[in-house]
Amino acid sequence: MKKTSLLLFLFVLCIGFAQTEDEKQFKTIYDMALTEGKAYHWLNHLSNQIGGRLSGSVQAQQAVEYTKSQLDSLGLDRVWLQPVMVPKWVRGAPEFAYIETKPGLTTNVPICALGGSVATPGIGLKAEVIEVQGIEDLAKLGREKIDGKIVFYNRPMDPTLISTFQSYSGCVDQRYSGAAEAAKYGATGVIVRSMSLRLDDYPHTGAMSYGDTPIEQRIPAAAISTNGAELLSTTLKLNPNIKFFFRQNCRQYPDVESYNVIGEIRGSEHPEEIMIVGGHLDSWDLGDGSHDDGAGCVQSMEVLHLFKKIGYKPKRTLRVVLFMNEENGLRGGNKYAEVAELKNEKHVFALESDAGGFTPRGFSFDCDDANFEQILGWTALFEPYLIHMFVRGGSGADISPLKDQRLVLSGLRPDSQRYFDHHHAENDTFEHVNKRELELGAATMASLVYLIDKYGTVRPSKVKG
Amino acid sequence: MKKTSLLLFLFVLCIGFAQTEDEKQFKTIYDMALTEGKAYHWLNHLSNQIGGRLSGSVQAQQAVEYTKSQLDSLGLDRVWLQPVMVPKWVRGAPEFAYIETKPGLTTNVPICALGGSVATPGIGLKAEVIEVQGIEDLAKLGREKIDGKIVFYNRPMDPTLISTFQSYSGCVDQRYSGAAEAAKYGATGVIVRSMSLRLDDYPHTGAMSYGDTPIEQRIPAAAISTNGAELLSTTLKLNPNIKFFFRQNCRQYPDVESYNVIGEIRGSEHPEEIMIVGGHLDSWDLGDGSHDDGAGCVQSMEVLHLFKKIGYKPKRTLRVVLFMNEENGLRGGNKYAEVAELKNEKHVFALESDAGGFTPRGFSFDCDDANFEQILGWTALFEPYLIHMFVRGGSGADISPLKDQRLVLSGLRPDSQRYFDHHHAENDTFEHVNKRELELGAATMASLVYLIDKYGTVRPSKVKG
Repeated sequence: MKKTSLLLFLFVLCIGFAQTEDEKQFKTIYDMALTEGKAYHWLNHLSNQIGGRLSGSVQAQQAVEYTKSQLDSLGLDRVWLQPVMVPKWVRGAPEFAYIETKPGLTTNVPICALGGSVATPGIGLKAEVIEVQGIEDLAKLGREKIDGKIVFYNRPMDPTLISTFQSYSGCVDQRYSGAAEAAKYGATGVIVRSMSLRLDDYPHTGAMSYGDTPIEQRIPAAAISTNGAELLSTTLKLNPNIKFFFRQNCRQYPDVESYNVIGEIRGSEHPEEIMIVGGHLDSWDLGDGSHDDGAGCVQSMEVLHLFKKIGYKPKRTLRVVLFMNEENGLRGGNKYAEVAELKNEKHVFALESDAGGFTPRGFSFDCDDANFEQILGWTALFEPYLIHMFVRGGSGADISPLKDQRLVLSGLRPDSQRYFDHHHAENDTFEHVNKRELELGAATMASLVYLIDKYGTVRPSKVKG
Repeated sequence: MKKTSLLLFLFVLCIGFAQTEDEKQFKTIYDMALTEGKAYHWLNHLSNQIGGRLSGSVQAQQAVEYTKSQLDSLGLDRVWLQPVMVPKWVRGAPEFAYIETKPGLTTNVPICALGGSVATPGIGLKAEVIEVQGIEDLAKLGREKIDGKIVFYNRPMDPTLISTFQSYSGCVDQRYSGAAEAAKYGATGVIVRSMSLRLDDYPHTGAMSYGDTPIEQRIPAAAISTNGAELLSTTLKLNPNIKFFFRQNCRQYPDVESYNVIGEIRGSEHPEEIMIVGGHLDSWDLGDGSHDDGAGCVQSMEVLHLFKKIGYKPKRTLRVVLFMNEENGLRGGNKYAEVAELKNEKHVFALESDAGGFTPRGFSFDCDDANFEQILGWTALFEPYLIHMFVRGGSGADISPLKDQRLVLSGLRPDSQRYFDHHHAENDTFEHVNKRELELGAATMASLVYLIDKYGTVRPSKVKG
């Protein structure tokens, strides 16, 4: 009994000491991020010197070169570019649209082509409009009511959901598959209400897909601002016979070569166990991609920078991966996982930041129960930094192809309330990112990586094959 | 044993049901706030139609009239104005300042008079500058090094504190008492680094006090933007003999009559138990006072509006109080408490929102252990709305004079990262308040009030006297 008590005492003592050491390490990480962090400086360059970084664009290439040069300057063990072929879609001349209540009487409305859409005819496309609340309405209406018309998808994001990502999920099928589905009923084009919870004049672009629609049956698709959608809907209620005109000359080019940008600190004890932190370097072209996902890139770079600055040498290999082409292809994420499998690399942990540079609230985890239990044991360490959310859920698009490795996948969860005000729109710009919020996110990521590195994951996953 | 088990079972069942009813009520409150809330609409009017509402100003009076008219329209049991005499300080012509590195060679810097400061001489004030890191430096330097100079308080907010309010507390003595203290050593004026964590060009005003400094010894005090402070500090390092010029013609007028605006829903079962929700209607004059504290006012009004909309009839009396003169006098808060004591009113709960209209994170409570324990039992209800912080601490300036009543005092705790970017500055404006964040704050307040109303406070406090 006595011996057990003593052991218990020593055990508690050890936990006590460990806790104190972890607490200190957290404080060191956060202090460094908030005083000597580089994330905001890097984001300034990405946003204001380079700008929107659509896959295949000059800006995307500039971003590859800039981030590689910055990683080169951090004294990492290795920095390299991983080639990947990416789609190249170009918006072309600014889009133009109006509502025609009667011939000659028109009201301009703000639209933008959806990413991947075909162009309208050069002189534009004018047709009557049929408003629907979602893809499921098409079958009810049938070809007779849709043929020859523009389908207007107008189901708004649900404002009563607290997570705006959940609201987004409930709408985005209209944008992604709306054109392919409407084409089946003879529609000539589609207009989609922007995925935003605000009423304003910004159209929000984003990826769409024609699926297996034959090329000659593909119809142009554009997003309309939420104010524009409200106007169009009201106008249609007054007169269902009004016409809508839009013109866009976007175009898909052959794939081009681009790169994932990767930097690595080799693990001192278990170099074969790889942890990655990442975001996606590409962005849409309307804004400068500060929140989506410049923020995630610079926060991920910052994790390695912070470890260097505080002199923390990870036991496991730590990589930052800046993925190319998350927005319209996920080619970078797929390529990274493919190469990892080819090389028989063993990934134990992957953390993505792709939900904006807002105040961090926690993480979501895609992992087994044992690992989630271990993580829940760490939450008290995060409490002083107001990090409260540790939930099961999705992680990040770019790291999801690694899932076969049965590793711990995680996504940073910043405050989501304002994310879709800016998402894929002209106002996703640098001035809407707050320096401290960005830095707190980076520190929060670094703190989790520190714990994963120190304590390891539970039942390290076996590499496939 | 059997009977006990049955009772226990019934007890658990009751708790289960109660929980479900509370969960439903929470959902109803949040849904209503996010879909039919009026807070944003009211704030738009206060900010964009009225603007900055410094005590004693025309705008403050307009705000009294507007909010009273809006409360009148809600169908409350009683709406009234509570007269209170308030100070009237007027900024006058725009301030002007420059650094003079040598005669004729000057660089303009943005400053603003601190609230309550005297003017400079009409032709301005020019003197050498002595930089200090706080009031405690004055005694070390002594009269010899300070006499005839302008004291430049340049201790910045500590960026490593997670709560920016804590950083603010660590600096604000320079602004509040800096002039009175420097005058004791013969200083001719003081310049204070703006209380902000950003580097930018906005000077931030705020209250200062001369304490018992005789009128003829009072020296002018101004805030300089953080970028201006950095420039001044750097310039001083290069040449300690440079001069600083500033001119301001602010003025204190005799007190004028103003009002607290109060609305009330009479309690259906315990009308004598009063719960209040409030913010302060006055603001500084540089911006439009959207975050400080237009947000808190409209959120407080919204609590009563939401209860009306969802048909919840409080058992206890619920009052919204829009306090006048929090910024430079606290006359409204003091008056409200004074009248409450005179009328022998029994307040059981007071909740203030005065920390900006950002995403709500939780509440701080100033109460006894028993009440805090009860509140901690409710936290799971708030979890789905991402409200995690339930801590002991300060509540709000306006409600603090009620403390003698030994009631439960509470303050809404929104995310604090961006608050001091806007606080008391020209950029505390409507466009920096997000509609959803504002509404979530109002719903969070209403949900707490609902629980306090339903379950009551523990050991209801005895009214003094």
